[in-house]
Amino acid sequence: MRPVHTEAAPSHTGPVPQAVVSGGWIFVSALFGTHPESGRRPDDARTEADQLFTNLTEILAAAGASPDHVVRAGIFMRDLRRDRPVFNEAWVDYFGSHRPARSAVEVSDFGRADDDCRFMLEVVAHKP
Amino acid sequence: MRPVHTEAAPSHTGPVPQAVVSGGWIFVSALFGTHPESGRRPDDARTEADQLFTNLTEILAAAGASPDHVVRAGIFMRDLRRDRPVFNEAWVDYFGSHRPARSAVEVSDFGRADDDCRFMLEVVAHKP
Amino acid sequence: MRPVHTEAAPSHTGPVPQAVVSGGWIFVSALFGTHPESGRRPDDARTEADQLFTNLTEILAAAGASPDHVVRAGIFMRDLRRDRPVFNEAWVDYFGSHRPARSAVEVSDFGRADDDCRFMLEVVAHKP
Repeated sequence: MRPVHTEAAPSHTGPVPQAVVSGGWIFVSALFGTHPESGRRPDDARTEADQLFTNLTEILAAAGASPDHVVRAGIFMRDLRRDRPVFNEAWVDYFGSHRPARSAVEVSDFGRADDDCRFMLEVVAHKP
Repeated sequence: MRPVHTEAAPSHTGPVPQAVVSGGWIFVSALFGTHPESGRRPDDARTEADQLFTNLTEILAAAGASPDHVVRAGIFMRDLRRDRPVFNEAWVDYFGSHRPARSAVEVSDFGRADDDCRFMLEVVAHKP
Repeated sequence: MRPVHTEAAPSHTGPVPQAVVSGGWIFVSALFGTHPESGRRPDDARTEADQLFTNLTEILAAAGASPDHVVRAGIFMRDLRRDRPVFNEAWVDYFGSHRPARSAVEVSDFGRADDDCRFMLEVVAHKP
């Protein structure tokens, strides 16, 4: 197993790597739509989702992979009914015709309560 | 990676495949107990759980696998104390002596708020 | 796939193995900080986290693996802001410089409501 790190995506404050790679599988830690330089979350929901996917692209690239290698995503939102439509728009723009397996649940908090993030994503990618 | 689709199980409304297969691993998207033809959730909890597992069987079959290949399940319920006993009964009837790893959490919503689904399941199967 | 069982870690009450192994991958079921003999949760948050990791070590050992093989963890807490700092302290003491991918969410219940557990962990390990 090797950890993945890139300055082009936000780092975690706790003992958390951006991702790890083991045997062709890439496990990405909790992804947020924060900007890697400012560390801030965009006010706009769509911009937040786009930034989250930009962060994912950078982390996958640092692991030698691309969005087409994503096989599964766990999606967590604070308000599923309000924010899922715009998240799905950003998803389709990002993945194009690629369709990872996914599930989505609503949770009260995912560790970014202070800046009121709308989206958290957990990703598994496979590059054999 | 290839997507899995069967008419014998419900389709997702958003950009979500029923499952994907990559390198012998099958990732099943969020499973619900809705009926593939009516698109409706059974009123009875046990019937809902049974329908969910029927949907799983169909999706696994479309991926060339069976319930015995399931290695891990994430279980999400709206009311864990109320609905877990009946879910576990359906689980044992479905899996028999096969015992996938699993965890269960209670969440306020998993994207089917309108029809008040009790159960959502996320599954990983392995057919080397 | 083979199930993993050890008397040195708590057993589940429902139809749930402690873990399963398939093709070098180890999927650990919901882990709690309960003591394997008393079945009780420690009153102190740090002791609860430490017991959870002790349980993990025992289950991984029964699967022929060790903490260094953990690649991914899903963390569930009842009160993320209150309990995450102490959990992270226990995490760092346990894993040392090893850094699995992880995410953490807050949920209202994870099936141990009666004894008011603070932490639940879900783990994937890889020993090729």
